[in-house]
Order: sequence, then structure tokens, then C-alpha cells
Amino acid sequence: MLQASQIILDPVEQLRNDFKKGLQQVDTLILSSVSASEPLVQNIAKTLISAGGKRLRPLLCLASSRLISEFNQNSISLAAAVELIHAATLLHDDVVDESPLRRGQQTANMIWGNKPSILVGDFLFARAFQLMVNTGDINFLDILATASSKISEGEVTQLRCFNSLDLSVDSYLEITEYKTATLFSAACHTGALAAGADPYSAQQLSQFGRYFGLMYQVVDDVNDYIMSNRGKSQGDDYREGKVTLPILLAYQADTDKSFWHQCFNDDNQPFQKPPFDQVLNRLHKLDAFKKCETIAKFYGKEAQKCLASFSNDVSYLMQMLVESYFAC
Amino acid sequence: MLQASQIILDPVEQLRNDFKKGLQQVDTLILSSVSASEPLVQNIAKTLISAGGKRLRPLLCLASSRLISEFNQNSISLAAAVELIHAATLLHDDVVDESPLRRGQQTANMIWGNKPSILVGDFLFARAFQLMVNTGDINFLDILATASSKISEGEVTQLRCFNSLDLSVDSYLEITEYKTATLFSAACHTGALAAGADPYSAQQLSQFGRYFGLMYQVVDDVNDYIMSNRGKSQGDDYREGKVTLPILLAYQADTDKSFWHQCFNDDNQPFQKPPFDQVLNRLHKLDAFKKCETIAKFYGKEAQKCLASFSNDVSYLMQMLVESYFAC
Repeated sequence: MLQASQIILDPVEQLRNDFKKGLQQVDTLILSSVSASEPLVQNIAKTLISAGGKRLRPLLCLASSRLISEFNQNSISLAAAVELIHAATLLHDDVVDESPLRRGQQTANMIWGNKPSILVGDFLFARAFQLMVNTGDINFLDILATASSKISEGEVTQLRCFNSLDLSVDSYLEITEYKTATLFSAACHTGALAAGADPYSAQQLSQFGRYFGLMYQVVDDVNDYIMSNRGKSQGDDYREGKVTLPILLAYQADTDKSFWHQCFNDDNQPFQKPPFDQVLNRLHKLDAFKKCETIAKFYGKEAQKCLASFSNDVSYLMQMLVESYFAC
Repeated sequence: MLQASQIILDPVEQLRNDFKKGLQQVDTLILSSVSASEPLVQNIAKTLISAGGKRLRPLLCLASSRLISEFNQNSISLAAAVELIHAATLLHDDVVDESPLRRGQQTANMIWGNKPSILVGDFLFARAFQLMVNTGDINFLDILATASSKISEGEVTQLRCFNSLDLSVDSYLEITEYKTATLFSAACHTGALAAGADPYSAQQLSQFGRYFGLMYQVVDDVNDYIMSNRGKSQGDDYREGKVTLPILLAYQADTDKSFWHQCFNDDNQPFQKPPFDQVLNRLHKLDAFKKCETIAKFYGKEAQKCLASFSNDVSYLMQMLVESYFAC
């Protein structure tokens, strides 16, 4: 196990390494739980799950268990359930956003069409609940059913406000809380409870997840514009017409609103999108990324505060994990 | 309460009348549980729920409770949860089938578009699980999570086999079991358990629901072709290119397969669909409806057998309910 004095190059990799065995158990459970008699279901589900992804939510679930005591079979089931809910929302998101690519690979809706994506999303969602049932503890179902309904509410609000430059930053962050932070919060909350957390510690880790999720989304929004090593392609959000936090902050600061209307077709005029480089320059000039970084840091610091009462080596790694997101 | 000796004109109406108060409680609970902070979610969910529908699944859930003893708050919660799952699958089905109308009214996907329909379906599904959590009994979540994953598996199989005249009748009925009978079975099963059913009685009512659901779908398929008083428009399935049971039975019996290939574009040739009347005549000539009636009756009789050990007035009404479906 790593000592606090050692230099950590990548806390995600370090955590992933520490929880290697647990994450393998999560992957095995996910793969066995998406096995189905219907070949098309199995094909799509397995392709999606095998495509990887960072497994950040399962990792935080297991780490939250270990902050309390040790992860156990329920932690594994809950980590798998959280990842299945995440996978289900990705499938439906990609249909809703008409996204051709995710993590550089063709999306399921592009390969198999929208229809199977919708239905297999439903299947994964149901399987997630079956995994929770296997824990025998209805509290976990309570937390994750509530989270699931908040996620879809957030997604609908996002859809309603899609492309709107008039969205306030507060409203944007509220949507982010619903659609992203809720699941991170539930992952940490259930992970803590699975390891027998007392109510105070469980609440602290639930809040940690919430702040981590908010920070994560802000950083993700920025990473879509600036070169990043986190696997996103540059400019996807802009090309897909998504109004994200950097854009909202730039729009509010800019005296010339018409540029942004042209970027996002907000005035419903026939339009030609300004090239990406031009947008990027303007975002830099208006300090949009710096402002995002300030917001991300605020959430990150709040997340770190929630870890203050935990003092083992995993809490140190989680502190470092948060810090690794500070420089977007 | 109705006596067995009285003539029953419409057992569904009679049952609905007997459970009027319970069904009102179910409706109140559904409406309060779809209230959401996001106006678009609330708008779609309320429109869908208020549009009515027969509430057949909640009715069977409450009736199953009463066959055991009396319905209670858990029966109401489960009946509402089952209806929300049903509503969620309808929203997603209509997107998948690209259906413009349901029960003679514009579908949600036509009014608001596919995207909100997908996301609000997810929301209703999550809310259904929240209602189940409120019962405090994880067994209900087990039954309905399992049912939900079977429903989506069945839907995917149906999608894969859509339009295929080569589907065997057995395979068709297996899909029906997954996508339709499972939820009827879960409604009756959970309703019985909510009222404290012993394992044998709970199993009998689970099986009753399964057979009832199979019969219901066969009758529904027929009603799409012949004039019916159950609110479907004649010929929807044919216009939408759905290969249902009457078609499969006719296709197998017919020496001239090309007519059916022309109807369902199965040979991938440029085609002109034969007019509906011509299809209807051919279905009659090939005894397709009579064969469906035989299958429906078989399931109906099996359903009735499952009620044999119950002898109160509700069991009589449920027997009559089954019988009312015999003459498709």
C-alpha cells in the first residue's frame, strides 16, 4: 500500500491499482448480470461494458467502503449496479444527443440503431435493480431509485434548456447536480453504508460524492475545449451545439452577444458556425476556463472537507484524486 | 357486492366498480408520484397518466389482494408501481414503433418528440421503484425488477424478429410471455403477497396473471383486425407492419406465401401493400382468427384453473373476466 510520503503520479491509476481485485469482481459481476437469453441484448450490453470507461463510480463506491472498514460483497454489487445505471443513461443519452462517438468509438445507437439502444438501456436499468435486490437491504434501493429519478429529471431539464444561452450559471449547476452529481453521491453513500458507516460518516461521503460529481462535470466541460488526456475529443460539445459552463460564463462576460448567438444558433437565423479555433480564443480571452477552474476548485475543496474525518491511506489518495482535477 | 347469480354485462366494469375506491387511491398515488420539479417531466407524465387506459394491471393487483384477504396500502403502492412500469414501457414502445396514435390520441413522441419520451420513460420507471421501496418489503422489488428485465428482453427480441414471417408460433408466444404476460403475472403475484398470501396461493395468482396476460395479448392481436369495442383502431398493426399471431397462423396455413411477403415486405422487394380488406378476407378464409380464439381459450382455461382454490365473489368476477375474452 502506498505511503502518504510517496509521490503520486496519477491518483486514479493508483486507486485503480489498489482496488484492482475489487474492480475485477465488479466487472465479472456486471458481465454475468448482463447475460441474457436474447442475443441482441447480450451483444449490445457486453460491447458497451467491455468498451471500458474509467469505472470511476464503482471505484468511488469501493473506496468509500474502505474509508469506513473494508469493501465486501454488497459493495461489489452496489458498485456494479451504479455502473449499470451509468451505462443505461449513456445509452439513452447517446440516442437523445444523437451522438456518433463516445470515447472515440462508435456509439451503440450508430451501430445497432436507436431502438435497441433504448430497450437495452431499460434492460441494464432493470438489471441494476436486480443487483441491488441481491444485497437484501432496501436502503440501497431507496438511495439508488431516488438517484435514478433525479438523473432523468436533470436530463429532461437539460433537454428543455438545450442550446439556451440565457440559462443562468446557477441553473446550469443545478442541472449538473441532478444529472451527474447524484450518481457519484449515491455511489459513495451506498459504498459507505455497505461497510457499516454510521449516519454522520455516510452523510459525509454522500456529500463528498456530490461535490466530486459537480467538480467532475465542470472539468469535463472544460476538457471538451482544451487539450486533455482524459480521452475526450476536442470540440465535441461545440459541434453538437451543447451550451456548457465555459460558454455560459463567456456569454455573460461578453459585450458582443451576437458572436455566441451565431455559435449556437440562438437567434434562429440561418447561420454559419464560427470555426472552433475562434471560439477557443474568445473563451480564453474572456477568462471562461479560469472561471471554470475557480468553480471546480470550490467544489473540490468542499469535497476534500468531507474527507477530513477519515484518515487512512485511501482518504489520502482520494484527497489527491480530487486535487488532480484542480488544473482542468 | 354482486351475487354470482346476477347477470354480469361487463366483468371489467363490474370489477372496476367494486374496486372504485382502491383505483381512485391508485390514481391519486400515481399523480402525486409523478409530480416533479421539472415542468416538462410533469407535463408529459400527467398527460400520459390522465389519458386513462383501462388500469387493468392495477385492477388485477387489487383483486389479487382481495382474493387473499383485503387490499391495503401496499397493494395500492404496488398497483401504482405496476401501472408506472406499464406507462414507461408504453412511452418507450411508441418511440421504438414510431407510433403516431395510442387509444385514438396522439402519442407523447408525436407531441413532444422522441427525446423527452425516452427520458420521461426512465423517470416513470425510477418512480415505480421508489413506490416499491415505500412498501419496505424487498420481495416486491425482486419480483418487479425481474419482471422489468424480462419485459425489455422481450421487447428486444420482438424488435429483432419484427416483420419476420418465419417466426414460429412458439417463439411468438415466448416473446408475448416476456413482454406482456410477465407484468400481469407480477401484478397478481405482488397483490397476493401484499395481502399475506401463502406461497401456494401466491404462486397460483402469479400463474393466473401469466395465463391471463398471454390470453390478453392474443385477443389484442385479433382485435386489431376485427371490429372490437376495446378501443383499438382497426388495422393499426397491419399498417405499422407488425407481424402478429393471426398473420403467423395464416402464413403457415397458406399455400401462397407470396401474398404475405407482399403484405409485410418480407422479400425486400419494392412493394405495394395489399388493401386491408383483402388481408382481412384471407385471414378469415384461413381460419386465423378461429385458431387465435382456440389459443386464447386454452390460456383462459388455464388462468381459470389457477383461480379454482379461491371461492369468494371476486374470484367469480375474475372467472367471468377471463371468459369475457373468449369470444375475441
